[in-house]
Amino acid sequence: MLYLVHMDVRIPDTVPPVEAEQIKARERAYSQQLQREGTWVHLWRVVGEYANYSIFDVESHDRLHEVLSNLPLFPYMTIKVTPLAAHPSAVS
Amino acid sequence: MLYLVHMDVRIPDTVPPVEAEQIKARERAYSQQLQREGTWVHLWRVVGEYANYSIFDVESHDRLHEVLSNLPLFPYMTIKVTPLAAHPSAVS
Amino acid sequence: MLYLVHMDVRIPDTVPPVEAEQIKARERAYSQQLQREGTWVHLWRVVGEYANYSIFDVESHDRLHEVLSNLPLFPYMTIKVTPLAAHPSAVS
Amino acid sequence: MLYLVHMDVRIPDTVPPVEAEQIKARERAYSQQLQREGTWVHLWRVVGEYANYSIFDVESHDRLHEVLSNLPLFPYMTIKVTPLAAHPSAVS
Amino acid sequence: MLYLVHMDVRIPDTVPPVEAEQIKARERAYSQQLQREGTWVHLWRVVGEYANYSIFDVESHDRLHEVLSNLPLFPYMTIKVTPLAAHPSAVS
Amino acid sequence: MLYLVHMDVRIPDTVPPVEAEQIKARERAYSQQLQREGTWVHLWRVVGEYANYSIFDVESHDRLHEVLSNLPLFPYMTIKVTPLAAHPSAVS
Amino acid sequence: MLYLVHMDVRIPDTVPPVEAEQIKARERAYSQQLQREGTWVHLWRVVGEYANYSIFDVESHDRLHEVLSNLPLFPYMTIKVTPLAAHPSAVS
Amino acid sequence: MLYLVHMDVRIPDTVPPVEAEQIKARERAYSQQLQREGTWVHLWRVVGEYANYSIFDVESHDRLHEVLSNLPLFPYMTIKVTPLAAHPSAVS
Amino acid sequence: MLYLVHMDVRIPDTVPPVEAEQIKARERAYSQQLQREGTWVHLWRVVGEYANYSIFDVESHDRLHEVLSNLPLFPYMTIKVTPLAAHPSAVS
Amino acid sequence: MLYLVHMDVRIPDTVPPVEAEQIKARERAYSQQLQREGTWVHLWRVVGEYANYSIFDVESHDRLHEVLSNLPLFPYMTIKVTPLAAHPSAVS
Repeated sequence: MLYLVHMDVRIPDTVPPVEAEQIKARERAYSQQLQREGTWVHLWRVVGEYANYSIFDVESHDRLHEVLSNLPLFPYMTIKVTPLAAHPSAVS
Repeated sequence: MLYLVHMDVRIPDTVPPVEAEQIKARERAYSQQLQREGTWVHLWRVVGEYANYSIFDVESHDRLHEVLSNLPLFPYMTIKVTPLAAHPSAVS
Repeated sequence: MLYLVHMDVRIPDTVPPVEAEQIKARERAYSQQLQREGTWVHLWRVVGEYANYSIFDVESHDRLHEVLSNLPLFPYMTIKVTPLAAHPSAVS
Repeated sequence: MLYLVHMDVRIPDTVPPVEAEQIKARERAYSQQLQREGTWVHLWRVVGEYANYSIFDVESHDRLHEVLSNLPLFPYMTIKVTPLAAHPSAVS
Repeated sequence: MLYLVHMDVRIPDTVPPVEAEQIKARERAYSQQLQREGTWVHLWRVVGEYANYSIFDVESHDRLHEVLSNLPLFPYMTIKVTPLAAHPSAVS
Repeated sequence: MLYLVHMDVRIPDTVPPVEAEQIKARERAYSQQLQREGTWVHLWRVVGEYANYSIFDVESHDRLHEVLSNLPLFPYMTIKVTPLAAHPSAVS
Repeated sequence: MLYLVHMDVRIPDTVPPVEAEQIKARERAYSQQLQREGTWVHLWRVVGEYANYSIFDVESHDRLHEVLSNLPLFPYMTIKVTPLAAHPSAVS
Repeated sequence: MLYLVHMDVRIPDTVPPVEAEQIKARERAYSQQLQREGTWVHLWRVVGEYANYSIFDVESHDRLHEVLSNLPLFPYMTIKVTPLAAHPSAVS
Repeated sequence: MLYLVHMDVRIPDTVPPVEAEQIKARERAYSQQLQREGTWVHLWRVVGEYANYSIFDVESHDRLHEVLSNLPLFPYMTIKVTPLAAHPSAVS
Repeated sequence: MLYLVHMDVRIPDTVPPVEAEQIKARERAYSQQLQREGTWVHLWRVVGEYANYSIFDVESHDRLHEVLSNLPLFPYMTIKVTPLAAHPSAVS
């Protein structure tokens, strides 16, 4: 099942830069693992923003929440999830 | 170049049902032609709404506006366009 | 899987009262059938509004969209869907 | 009487992690006690957010405010309460 | 139990003026009956708007919804209900 | 003249707890004095929120601003004032 | 006492143009009478909008509501009233 | 002086298509005349919307309002005006 | 030319109280100088808020930005500017 | 291709003033380089705000994101990008 996910990142000043870099590195590794597994199907940058739109393909709401709440940047993100259904005019 | 497009449809009561069906049929044919050409890359229904999220792949803003403004349902839609860039963590 | 669904109803003046009553009667019958089948788990009136909050239990986004888009009042509703996951502190 | 309650949690960085864990543990215990007593009837996680939708069943507004304002996480929550009435189409 | 109720009125042009006056007369009579019974405790006009803020004192959500949904102007109102609790600093 | 006043309180973490308690104690005393004088006519807690809806009865805008800006919690409040007029259907 | 008033005008298509002109003429006469009396102290057009910001000087909320609700364009306006107090830094 | 102007167009169904085309033709001629005079400096289509962002260069607010309120589509537009100043980092 | 300016002030806790008082004193002096010069035509307190509505009369956008950005409280203000034109029904 | 970009700047108190000045100096140099190259076509100050509206002319979304995310003030900005298409009534 597909979900559109919007993630907006705000890392507060209280996080030391070195720690912020470590979190981002872990985020990147975690994201790429999920992409290779076919869970994180698309990942696009919103132009001009520290934000992304993503498509996730998981079997349940519980699995999506598990995946998202384990994001290293999760404590610094505002996330909005939109469930997507098949469109009757989609060709494939 | 990719664009996320949100389309929200409101066909007013003043459009006779027969005409509304004709517009929708033309919309479907036009949409499927654009999908087969690779312009309209993804088309998803927003669950519970007469709305969709779509991904378009076109060479310019002008081309995207031409494509969208020719939608048979264009006069009855509220459309919001978000330009998407490559994400540094995307694996492909 | 559970979804919280908010439905807000506005029947326009252009719908004749007799037809509006027929639509509401069909809505009621359809709603009660879904409740008896265990699909529409909860149905609550928002106090002071022609609106409801409901809980649906369905196996997929596609099924939820099918159920909601077949509501006789669907053309006159603004619907918002929120996917719900299990909460770690929930006792059952 | 039933109330839909939306709770959105933001624990600021100024709360030391150890203290945050203690507050969450107390929150969990308090929540589960209220669930067992039949006051906190449903507790659902909003997918992708540190937020929940809950149903409370209490005898008065005063009792609901007492219950909510005693939540250990209350100082860090944005709470929105919606009173719910019986729906004429509800089957039970 | 007390509820703050905000009512915003928009009578559409499709309602003939004579009928609108009749509805307003019935609204007034119904409102005054509820005020005399002690259900509609306060009724204030929002300055410059066809809107009011009111305080209702009823024994349950169901009763409040019954009272509000029977307002002759109910089909033309946007209503927002806020439950009120006793304030610890209130002197009486 | 009557005003509906909504006060939403956010005491930042930078205020030491002891000082916060002192401010709240002064707020309470000041509020009760104004209630006894007939200036602060009603004071209700918004259920689930550190907020209140109040009715003030003062002779002028200047007096209301004086009263509100002297609230010990004023620096930590978001206040919204709505002037109220007599309603033609009010019975007293 | 001073009030800032924002008026936004939308005359629906269902009002015949001749009638609309008559309403506007009555509005103009009424407005100028109030200006000459010193009630409507300032009247400014919002650039690019069929809207105005105005300052009224009246002795009470009730009087302001009487003045505004008698505007010939009142049924077609969205009005927002902000009470203004003396500013401690104002020189006169 | 420069102003950023956002114009959003909604021609209601009650305007006959022939009349709508005539209005649009007059709008086009009027717009091009203002562009040639140097008043309407830039005119851009918002991608996917029946809307534009424009830059006007006029000597006063009064002149801008005169220009905008004479737009043949003015009755069907929502317009928002933002005054622009010279930026200290602008190179010319 | 006239502009309506709304200023909303939030001085953060990180500004020491003594420094805050000095800034306010400079703000007051600067404001009164501009009032005496005829630049800052009106200055009103929004009742219940640390905010004001003001009318400025300057010859250009650039001058208004210069005046506003030199306000001692400018770094702590959210400012919104609305250009005002002459109203055709204004009597003077 | 053209994009309208709105940038709103908030430098937090935690950035030392000297460092803030250095960032602004680098921002200015970087901005002027982009202006001279023809990438940053227009740069206007929003009157009364620490914000600007700008027009960028770049060959792709990716390039715009690269340009914007390299702004020295990027971590302290809220940016909104609107793609612009040619307008059929534009004269040049």
